[in-house]
Amino acid sequence: MHLDAFAFGGDYNPEQWPESVWDSDMELMRRAGITMATVGVFGWAQVQTGPDTFDFGWCDRALDKLAEHGVGVCLATMTASPPPWLARLHPETLPVTAEGTRLWPGGRQHYCPSSPVYREHAVALVERIARRYARHPALRLWHIGNEYGCHVSTCYCDVSAEAFRGWLARRYGDVDGLNEAWSTAFWSQRYTSFDEVLPPRTVPAIPNPAQNLDFQRFSSDAMLECFLLEKDVLRAHTPDVPVTTNLLGLAKSVDFFEWARHQDVISHDSYPDPHRADTHVEVAFNYDLMRSLGGGRPWLLMEQAPSAVNWRDRNAPKAPGQMRLWSYQAVARGSDAVLYFQFRQSRGGAERFHSAIVPHAGPRTRVFREVADLGAELAKLPEVLGSRVRADAALLMDWSSWWALEAESHPATDLSQVDANLAHYRPLWEARITTDIVHPAADLSRYRFVVVPNLYLVDADVAANLIEYVRTGGHLVMSFFSGIVDGNDRVHLGGYPAPFRELLGVHVEEFWPLPPHGAVGLALSDGHHGTGTLWSEWINLEGAEALATFAGGELSGRPAITRRSYGAGVAYYLGTKPDATTMGTLLRKAAAEAGAVPVLPGAPAGVEVTERRTEDGTRFLFLLNHNVFAVPVPVPPGATDAISGRDLGEQVTLDRRGVLIARLP
Amino acid sequence: MHLDAFAFGGDYNPEQWPESVWDSDMELMRRAGITMATVGVFGWAQVQTGPDTFDFGWCDRALDKLAEHGVGVCLATMTASPPPWLARLHPETLPVTAEGTRLWPGGRQHYCPSSPVYREHAVALVERIARRYARHPALRLWHIGNEYGCHVSTCYCDVSAEAFRGWLARRYGDVDGLNEAWSTAFWSQRYTSFDEVLPPRTVPAIPNPAQNLDFQRFSSDAMLECFLLEKDVLRAHTPDVPVTTNLLGLAKSVDFFEWARHQDVISHDSYPDPHRADTHVEVAFNYDLMRSLGGGRPWLLMEQAPSAVNWRDRNAPKAPGQMRLWSYQAVARGSDAVLYFQFRQSRGGAERFHSAIVPHAGPRTRVFREVADLGAELAKLPEVLGSRVRADAALLMDWSSWWALEAESHPATDLSQVDANLAHYRPLWEARITTDIVHPAADLSRYRFVVVPNLYLVDADVAANLIEYVRTGGHLVMSFFSGIVDGNDRVHLGGYPAPFRELLGVHVEEFWPLPPHGAVGLALSDGHHGTGTLWSEWINLEGAEALATFAGGELSGRPAITRRSYGAGVAYYLGTKPDATTMGTLLRKAAAEAGAVPVLPGAPAGVEVTERRTEDGTRFLFLLNHNVFAVPVPVPPGATDAISGRDLGEQVTLDRRGVLIARLP
Amino acid sequence: MHLDAFAFGGDYNPEQWPESVWDSDMELMRRAGITMATVGVFGWAQVQTGPDTFDFGWCDRALDKLAEHGVGVCLATMTASPPPWLARLHPETLPVTAEGTRLWPGGRQHYCPSSPVYREHAVALVERIARRYARHPALRLWHIGNEYGCHVSTCYCDVSAEAFRGWLARRYGDVDGLNEAWSTAFWSQRYTSFDEVLPPRTVPAIPNPAQNLDFQRFSSDAMLECFLLEKDVLRAHTPDVPVTTNLLGLAKSVDFFEWARHQDVISHDSYPDPHRADTHVEVAFNYDLMRSLGGGRPWLLMEQAPSAVNWRDRNAPKAPGQMRLWSYQAVARGSDAVLYFQFRQSRGGAERFHSAIVPHAGPRTRVFREVADLGAELAKLPEVLGSRVRADAALLMDWSSWWALEAESHPATDLSQVDANLAHYRPLWEARITTDIVHPAADLSRYRFVVVPNLYLVDADVAANLIEYVRTGGHLVMSFFSGIVDGNDRVHLGGYPAPFRELLGVHVEEFWPLPPHGAVGLALSDGHHGTGTLWSEWINLEGAEALATFAGGELSGRPAITRRSYGAGVAYYLGTKPDATTMGTLLRKAAAEAGAVPVLPGAPAGVEVTERRTEDGTRFLFLLNHNVFAVPVPVPPGATDAISGRDLGEQVTLDRRGVLIARLP
Repeated sequence: MHLDAFAFGGDYNPEQWPESVWDSDMELMRRAGITMATVGVFGWAQVQTGPDTFDFGWCDRALDKLAEHGVGVCLATMTASPPPWLARLHPETLPVTAEGTRLWPGGRQHYCPSSPVYREHAVALVERIARRYARHPALRLWHIGNEYGCHVSTCYCDVSAEAFRGWLARRYGDVDGLNEAWSTAFWSQRYTSFDEVLPPRTVPAIPNPAQNLDFQRFSSDAMLECFLLEKDVLRAHTPDVPVTTNLLGLAKSVDFFEWARHQDVISHDSYPDPHRADTHVEVAFNYDLMRSLGGGRPWLLMEQAPSAVNWRDRNAPKAPGQMRLWSYQAVARGSDAVLYFQFRQSRGGAERFHSAIVPHAGPRTRVFREVADLGAELAKLPEVLGSRVRADAALLMDWSSWWALEAESHPATDLSQVDANLAHYRPLWEARITTDIVHPAADLSRYRFVVVPNLYLVDADVAANLIEYVRTGGHLVMSFFSGIVDGNDRVHLGGYPAPFRELLGVHVEEFWPLPPHGAVGLALSDGHHGTGTLWSEWINLEGAEALATFAGGELSGRPAITRRSYGAGVAYYLGTKPDATTMGTLLRKAAAEAGAVPVLPGAPAGVEVTERRTEDGTRFLFLLNHNVFAVPVPVPPGATDAISGRDLGEQVTLDRRGVLIARLP
Repeated sequence: MHLDAFAFGGDYNPEQWPESVWDSDMELMRRAGITMATVGVFGWAQVQTGPDTFDFGWCDRALDKLAEHGVGVCLATMTASPPPWLARLHPETLPVTAEGTRLWPGGRQHYCPSSPVYREHAVALVERIARRYARHPALRLWHIGNEYGCHVSTCYCDVSAEAFRGWLARRYGDVDGLNEAWSTAFWSQRYTSFDEVLPPRTVPAIPNPAQNLDFQRFSSDAMLECFLLEKDVLRAHTPDVPVTTNLLGLAKSVDFFEWARHQDVISHDSYPDPHRADTHVEVAFNYDLMRSLGGGRPWLLMEQAPSAVNWRDRNAPKAPGQMRLWSYQAVARGSDAVLYFQFRQSRGGAERFHSAIVPHAGPRTRVFREVADLGAELAKLPEVLGSRVRADAALLMDWSSWWALEAESHPATDLSQVDANLAHYRPLWEARITTDIVHPAADLSRYRFVVVPNLYLVDADVAANLIEYVRTGGHLVMSFFSGIVDGNDRVHLGGYPAPFRELLGVHVEEFWPLPPHGAVGLALSDGHHGTGTLWSEWINLEGAEALATFAGGELSGRPAITRRSYGAGVAYYLGTKPDATTMGTLLRKAAAEAGAVPVLPGAPAGVEVTERRTEDGTRFLFLLNHNVFAVPVPVPPGATDAISGRDLGEQVTLDRRGVLIARLP
Repeated sequence: MHLDAFAFGGDYNPEQWPESVWDSDMELMRRAGITMATVGVFGWAQVQTGPDTFDFGWCDRALDKLAEHGVGVCLATMTASPPPWLARLHPETLPVTAEGTRLWPGGRQHYCPSSPVYREHAVALVERIARRYARHPALRLWHIGNEYGCHVSTCYCDVSAEAFRGWLARRYGDVDGLNEAWSTAFWSQRYTSFDEVLPPRTVPAIPNPAQNLDFQRFSSDAMLECFLLEKDVLRAHTPDVPVTTNLLGLAKSVDFFEWARHQDVISHDSYPDPHRADTHVEVAFNYDLMRSLGGGRPWLLMEQAPSAVNWRDRNAPKAPGQMRLWSYQAVARGSDAVLYFQFRQSRGGAERFHSAIVPHAGPRTRVFREVADLGAELAKLPEVLGSRVRADAALLMDWSSWWALEAESHPATDLSQVDANLAHYRPLWEARITTDIVHPAADLSRYRFVVVPNLYLVDADVAANLIEYVRTGGHLVMSFFSGIVDGNDRVHLGGYPAPFRELLGVHVEEFWPLPPHGAVGLALSDGHHGTGTLWSEWINLEGAEALATFAGGELSGRPAITRRSYGAGVAYYLGTKPDATTMGTLLRKAAAEAGAVPVLPGAPAGVEVTERRTEDGTRFLFLLNHNVFAVPVPVPPGATDAISGRDLGEQVTLDRRGVLIARLP
């Protein structure tokens, strides 16, 4: 997708207001420097008032007005929330929980993703919308559905059951294949026909893990089918208009790597909690993920809040300067858009206390002013558009492994993929080592350093990929409970972690999870001491050296953290969850040894730094001060302020929550 | 309702015992000084054994025996808990939760309030009871249903859905009115027909707030319709016998102000927890509410426990003297009755461990003795009957605002109306400033001081009422998040709190709820320091002066508590929840400035004092020592002990948990 | 059941593996000294692939192979988990929760115990299995079902409702009997026909306690009927092969005393948590219960984990030596078997992380070695087989009383039967006083000392039994809230605890539960001080002396713990839950006074000691060191090490987690 200017603006819902307000909307958009409006995300009930009755008038007029005022439109397919009449005519389109509770209209996203009735109605609507607006001058981008998986990511109804059976039949061919894959010889679960198979509804005891895993795959696929049905319609009408759907941050129910293949441009909704002091690290992770999903191409920050949201227990506003800082964080990590939900704050409905560009009190407000100021700044940065961010390091993650890791009936049941990912990502962020988030089957040869947090599930291809990466010179850090099961959650026999025993030079004989709230000492080979939590294990060395041993408890003196040279590379292994200091030291050393280079070494703590480079080699250094105090930061020689154009000298002072974009020729 | 003596006694359930026990009951009632028995609350299954079969014999004999022994009867309509045969013949009368779970017989109150089948059966039964006992000499009072809303206050079944649609059609006329009121343009919720509307059953995401609010109104009304159907029957048969239903303390699901209009006398069930040290303050609030609901007329303490209840996690008995103290608390705040649940402790059933006047061990027990002693005392206080309590202050509350305040999707979701009410009420109780609890649309001109805790929802009439109150000289304290939405939970546009911006002289630009467990400093203009919790906000002064500013955090230095002279009155505003000391100091100063006068200034802490005044001007001062140690209390000159008749002198010593009723001529 | 050698081995599930693995299984069994394999527990879906299709081939071959290698078989009836095709053909066989949620296949035990369809299919299968294998040379023991009540112990479906009505009709004869028993005069619950009665499905308020109690009895009986239907079939085919089902530890839903009558040998599954430091005391309780259930005859440890389990939040392995120690604990308390779940660790399925004799990594592992070593040791102890353990003390427990005790609507709702039992059992364990766990209606004359923890429900027979026990010289300690209700949860009138007032010499006038987390002081008559938690009460002495009084609070100075000589015996009463020290001192003194003798006085703390005695008088002293350090232990003269045969001298040192079996001639 090519942009002439930053996509700046956001969700615009004129249907919530009398048309008399719209002219004022246009004027305020102009003052705020808005270039793009997302229209119609929840428009279905407004444009289709019954199976055969439509009213597109308001939408025509809104789009015309936007076009007239030079605002581009990201046009939604309006299928995210079906109108009440559909639920009344077809209650079987409503989703059902594992316990059998039907979910009703009154919120949003109340549809069974597998429902043929829902899909028919959705496709027919999209057909109509695409036909109507294919040539509209404001149209820039198609927005399919909305935040797939946000509220309803699985449905256990009979319609879904039928679809699940079909999906399984396609995957396994015959029921013997299913029995083998699901290990149904255990607990008398052998199927004699696909007709007997059901979604993992509430069971008396521990559910079958492979059934659960496949149901999560199926559920992601069922939603993706909805997306693709709509995309096909749009493509037919507008082959040149890019298509996207807005991905949430780390939505467990949606396999982003699978979905990303079908997006013309990656777009993302980001809602960090201002009450959390270190939330920007998790945000950085998500932004890196979005960039990686698009293969490094610029992505779109499709939604963020101008200030507070409305759906947490306590909803803090963004403090002065915080919205600007966090917007530039997206740009710094590859976004060519800064878009908000929403333009004018709703008077009623579930999100009337969600902030907006134009608050209840109108434009004479801090929030409106900060948005408008940012709009003016972004207009001065057209050169940044399309530039790229390069990463030396990669963090591997895989949705199937995530689903399997967090299932029941494990040595420890509170393993969290997100926690593990962030525990490994944070030291890299602190060290300003730019990191991609990539699928473990991806080509890793471009990375100097790879971290593998709790990659529980690996198939043979992935195992081979990682081994080859190290053999040919890569440096890799893998944490415990990786490489344990295959794609159907069946243990790789022969001692843990069977696929990586040789690579790592260890044999894990037994998992030894610590008691809840328990900890174990770590004696490091450099004389330091640390602490492990959550997990320990009985490791036998088979070629590795111990970098740390457990100190105290049943495993006292046995290896806890190991290192092995393998081929031309190095493989580290962590048999516990080390404290943050030990983790940080370890990863920094390993990264340095690997040759992964920090951006702007010497910047003070709490200052995030990334680099975007244009095709012609111009570099933009983004310096983001997350501290609530000012700090001095060294600047490379020859740098200028990309917004003001002034020379920066050798050092600048970043205000609290301050931002500097240094242009390097 | 006119009484010759205190209504003293309580629930009498002779159907639980062989008739051979009843003569002993009469003898024990005599010894305890019992004047009134409530009969038949759960009698339905005992008097009606099938659709067409009845057995009133036991009830006839019980009422005759009571009449013979001079005990008046509060006769229940027996409709609180339908018999099992009704559920078997008509399972559709059973209520259904929002999740779709049907609630079955085995407890009590298992009926859908909207069920026409339930209503027909109830009305037919009441018709039969009213006809049978209309002229019974023991009959004093009708008791309709029981504790409406205690266990089942809402029903989401299809029958309720139909009734809800009818209620909405009457309220809004057409579906466009509904769409406007419910802001259905948000999230694609627009209805094209009332047929599509449902109760707010389980939804995937945040439910529509206006739908929820209307459903709570409808649910209170549906129960009220049940009450009124029965009342109409009773009125037809016994136009002169008063009718009541026993209201719980602060039952969220029942709009007391609406219900009170239909009661001939207000009656109340009070079950404080002896394990909670300050429970008497909440009890005082409830008693003041009951008095206020009846327009200041005496009310009836219809139920309390003689000692322990059975339904908390740990059920403490009332300590020696505590039952007496708390009984006089009711009288002190306007009750002309002291009634208990129940007379004889049940041998079996769900409440066999609920205390009773006659315990399992019989009358040679502490509990029976304390009841009988109190009965003898009350017999010496006939002059108190019918006397009134006068209040200088009022605390405003409104059920619609309560429902709306505690809904989801607010800046902070743990706002509690009861907590807010008590935080404002407690300082007044401590200062012995008698306070009425009144609806915000009521005439406020009789009050010198009005407090408005978190009155989130206000319509134009209420806004005008409060403004006029201050303009004409009233003093008012309003706390944050008041005046935010209209009657359909739609924000009053134009800056918060739009209806009160001028009155208060402030503009709240943004809500700034504190993090969970967080706090913010308060710097008071008098040099003191305090702490705010739960909430803060960005206040712009527009005519008010700051009495306190925030100290620390993003809002440091901005106004936190304000004061404005407006017309002939004064309006205070609280932008946070101050600590108890700050709140107490503020309210005491403001009340004093307003001219709200304490009853008996100079009494020690922990001693509650109220005054009842007869028509002829005799005053009774109730002094209640909630401390567990004795304290000296000053007494007005000329006072005598209303029970013993002795002169009190200048000062008396109140025993731990002691009570004194001082008669002032 | 007669054994030639310890039953050593466990669950063997060859159906989970290719037959090519089976020869290796046989070789590993030989190396581990395995004598018995449990086959087919979850075999249903493997042997019956549809209503009329069977495949017993794999089972034939497995049993033949085991026979060939000299391994006996405990053959399961395979009915514990029905195959998916049954659920599809007969969804009405699936169980339903009180809330109405159906439980689906995917785990195990998904059947309604009352379902005639399930029962017909189960009986037909057992008929076929019994016929096929009645004469198989490997067959040693029948294993019916599996861990009854583990996941599904109650079902609330319409089929269960019908069965419940039949059970009630048989129990009460007519509906008047039911009404009387269930106290239905309370809350209008009177039934006019059994047709109106339902299981205690979700109710709006407190459920009827007698209905709940009878439903728990019915549910235990419904499962027992399943067991007996299968047992009848087996008995017809193999009158001489013993029958058992594996009982869990303290399964609340299964009345062990009722079930034990129908077992030819008691068998037990034991899964202590290695993370809990004192779990061996609870384990000892369960082992004593199993021995007592079998009337003192040897029992079988049917299942334990070789190391970790998979179903806790954090699953710790058994540390080196711990499995051996805990295995001998079972033998020490009367087991003639040490069996494990399972032989080879599953590759897939819900329990793939449950340890096994042969781990994922194979036999070159700590776990396999420790099992094999133990097998070799046990082979040297044939003389122990069939020997008995004698107990001086008894602890009384009754499932009906347990069910009733832990119901809602009590003075305190967090009363726990298991906690109470263990609080009374632990001091006896610490004092090495061997204790049987017996039903309160049992003959107690053989015991010197009886403890009665919270025996809430007692009928007249039990009351008479306990009184007679003390009258004729027994010593008894009873704790609070005992003797309160009859068999239908109706209070014994006349002052608590009515049946025992004379025996104990006390009258409890009021229960006075402490606030949550509250405590009360105890002043002991010997000058010591202690603390009570959970409960206190207002005790009037009527012949007893106070051993302790409450110190502080409303009951300060009133009796807390009492003692009375009654007839030739002594009765103690505890009106609170004393701290562990006070409890220990009290019980040790009382036991000593009663003449209950410790096994091996003088052994250090943390060392468990029991004695098994053969018919010819040979005694085996089991010394088990639960400490994680070595301790010296005195040994009786003439003792030899039963395994090595060496003389032990006067004192031995037990290693950390060490075991010694001393043979005394």
